[in-house]
Amino acid sequence: MNDRTAATDGSTAIYNGMLLTMDASFHQYDQGLLIIEDSSITYAGPFRQELFSRIAPEQRIDAEGGLIIPGLINTHTHLGMSLFRSLADDSADRLRKVLIPMEKALVTPQLVYYASLHSISEMLLGGTTTCADMYFFADQSARALQESGMRAVVGSSLSSAAGPDAAEFSEGLERLRELMQACEHSDLTTAAAAPHAPYSLEREDLLSVSRFAADHRLPVLSHLAEMPFEEPYTLERYGLRPVPFYDSCGLIDDRSVMAHCIFASEEDRKLLISRSCGIAHNVSANSKSAKGIAPAYEFYRAGARLGLGTDGPMSGNTLDMVHLLGMTAKLQKLKEHDATVMQARAVLETATIGGARALHMEDRIGSLEVGKKADITVFSVASPAMFPIYDPYSALVYSASPSDVSLVMIDGKIVSSQRRLHTIDTAAVREACRTFTGQIAAKML
Amino acid sequence: MNDRTAATDGSTAIYNGMLLTMDASFHQYDQGLLIIEDSSITYAGPFRQELFSRIAPEQRIDAEGGLIIPGLINTHTHLGMSLFRSLADDSADRLRKVLIPMEKALVTPQLVYYASLHSISEMLLGGTTTCADMYFFADQSARALQESGMRAVVGSSLSSAAGPDAAEFSEGLERLRELMQACEHSDLTTAAAAPHAPYSLEREDLLSVSRFAADHRLPVLSHLAEMPFEEPYTLERYGLRPVPFYDSCGLIDDRSVMAHCIFASEEDRKLLISRSCGIAHNVSANSKSAKGIAPAYEFYRAGARLGLGTDGPMSGNTLDMVHLLGMTAKLQKLKEHDATVMQARAVLETATIGGARALHMEDRIGSLEVGKKADITVFSVASPAMFPIYDPYSALVYSASPSDVSLVMIDGKIVSSQRRLHTIDTAAVREACRTFTGQIAAKML
Repeated sequence: MNDRTAATDGSTAIYNGMLLTMDASFHQYDQGLLIIEDSSITYAGPFRQELFSRIAPEQRIDAEGGLIIPGLINTHTHLGMSLFRSLADDSADRLRKVLIPMEKALVTPQLVYYASLHSISEMLLGGTTTCADMYFFADQSARALQESGMRAVVGSSLSSAAGPDAAEFSEGLERLRELMQACEHSDLTTAAAAPHAPYSLEREDLLSVSRFAADHRLPVLSHLAEMPFEEPYTLERYGLRPVPFYDSCGLIDDRSVMAHCIFASEEDRKLLISRSCGIAHNVSANSKSAKGIAPAYEFYRAGARLGLGTDGPMSGNTLDMVHLLGMTAKLQKLKEHDATVMQARAVLETATIGGARALHMEDRIGSLEVGKKADITVFSVASPAMFPIYDPYSALVYSASPSDVSLVMIDGKIVSSQRRLHTIDTAAVREACRTFTGQIAAKML
Repeated sequence: MNDRTAATDGSTAIYNGMLLTMDASFHQYDQGLLIIEDSSITYAGPFRQELFSRIAPEQRIDAEGGLIIPGLINTHTHLGMSLFRSLADDSADRLRKVLIPMEKALVTPQLVYYASLHSISEMLLGGTTTCADMYFFADQSARALQESGMRAVVGSSLSSAAGPDAAEFSEGLERLRELMQACEHSDLTTAAAAPHAPYSLEREDLLSVSRFAADHRLPVLSHLAEMPFEEPYTLERYGLRPVPFYDSCGLIDDRSVMAHCIFASEEDRKLLISRSCGIAHNVSANSKSAKGIAPAYEFYRAGARLGLGTDGPMSGNTLDMVHLLGMTAKLQKLKEHDATVMQARAVLETATIGGARALHMEDRIGSLEVGKKADITVFSVASPAMFPIYDPYSALVYSASPSDVSLVMIDGKIVSSQRRLHTIDTAAVREACRTFTGQIAAKML
């Protein structure tokens, strides 16, 4: 509870809901009040009539008895992949046999732009306010994110092999420079370097990425310790396990976010944590692909910068962070053979302030505190599954659906309310996407 | 595809959607047509203008391009427990320390009636048309189900110890007789005997239940091979593992539905399958309680009568069958270390015709075929996660949310449309429930 600035007539209030601040002491207020001025929170605490009275009536947002939380943070996804959703599901080796040839043939800047808008629609409606993305033609994803008013770290995917947006590694760096330009004047999108994985770039290219990212102070997004074949590969070629190998390339530091880390040993985890590296845990994708259950609870209790991610919509198959909450709790309980680990509040932490820490943005987002950006999600409690609520964290983690999200604010602006998006024309986006889904379906035949 | 009877003016049609029949050959029709007369399906096949023309315009239901499937079947739940949802979640031994004392103190016929109505609201809105329930004061659950127009097998919970509705076992049989009376004149609700578990009834009481159920041709619902302590218990007392022990009591046959079976060995599974016993797989509850992943895929591929269940809303914590679909697939893939097992169509099978087989009702429900009861769920494809759809089974299993359900018909009657229930006043039910949730909250302090 704090009251740094007096609210002015231009401020907005969110009231009549239970406020879960997710601050360091997990302050919560049965009847909470948030006051937002421009893009920032100027009051977060119990309802106070004298503050509320100063807000113009049309600037008062009634949470209708719902749960008010920091916006959800998706720490790993591939926005441009939504048009591949449900393709060849359950089939063996689908990424190599179906997806990669499909990407080479069909991924264009236009596809990435519209697929990203479609992905962003799903995320905003489901209460996600920030994501970390990595894909091809990332300047197009950045454009879609900027138009949608969503906060993001946007990574340009880099590989030593030819890909949809680059014939070779050096051309990939050109794409990254274009992305940096596209993000230059945006407060919401941050450009990042995204080397794909230890096995898809040569060591010299990984070292180039590392130097480039250091020179430009860019975040680094990558996949690490995800594949069963990864450890034999790096051991044979470099005499190191994947995590120490990446570290030897200078890729594990306080600007890095490593996705998956399923096969991270205790030693690997210590290294990742000691370097302040962010970890993106992707429970839905990792289970659907039968890869395994990452040691998320071990990361959590050792103090890692641990966030949750949906992975791409071809892997997960949704961009639904709400559904990940319960799965994260349940699969860690199974892994640890203990129903008391990875409790509901801890899970919500990973989805909010934990995700902010994973993206090294905890100074700006992840909790509802004075001075932080106003990234806010309100859950309605009208649906049957949301009653009764003896514990609001349990309700969010074990009962909520993405459709319970009733309001989403990013950077002080309302982007979705009553299940309607304010910044994206979803029907027009779907119509534009049909050109590409038609091409994909034709190629599958 | 079949056309047994000509549609009359009194018939209803559902059109403009993809029809997934879930019949023995998994027939599906991109532009399907269902015709319903009274409570039954009289046509299920491709759209045919000459049939459609005979339906009165006001009896034509536009599925709006959605997916039309058999109503979902929840093969194991405890309707009366919804008011305990989220209570002491993540705490050790919560059933024994919190729930059982709470039930003894507070469970009344009134609580069971209103809690059941609240549970049924959630199930109907989420596309579930049939459930198998077991709890105390089961005549009250039957009453709530009948008022709601939901199909169900309703079990009266039996124990050798004193419970909320019976001081001793013989009194429990009285409750069961009351339930049988309550279901006597209902087409929708079938009374069942529900001995709680191998460890909660003495052998002589289990034998009594078995004889009583055989005499009255009642279904038998129970928990089996669920608890880690169950096997040492029956081995020590009876020299048999739980499944053979139950079999020795005459409880495993073609009227039985056994919930969980997490610890069923290969031999146990063979016995259960050879007896035509139904199996209720409860992935959400079993993972939340860290008990383990039941061998559902092993049951499935061996031809078991396998259905899915939510378990009670204190365990699961929802009655959401849609969310179970993806979890069932993902956790079996993890268990089998193989992304190609428990494919989407197989999962939808367990949630529909498989559930019907588990409840021994496959002659009446579980698929969309001529002569079957008109229990039908329509999923909208309007939400972003439901586009694109290259495989409708994948879309339902990996992408759908319960809020995508746009229409639910049971026994030929519409019970929910456009997310509005036709048979339950949800606001009034919630208001009535507040008396009980207040008592529960007070007792927790």
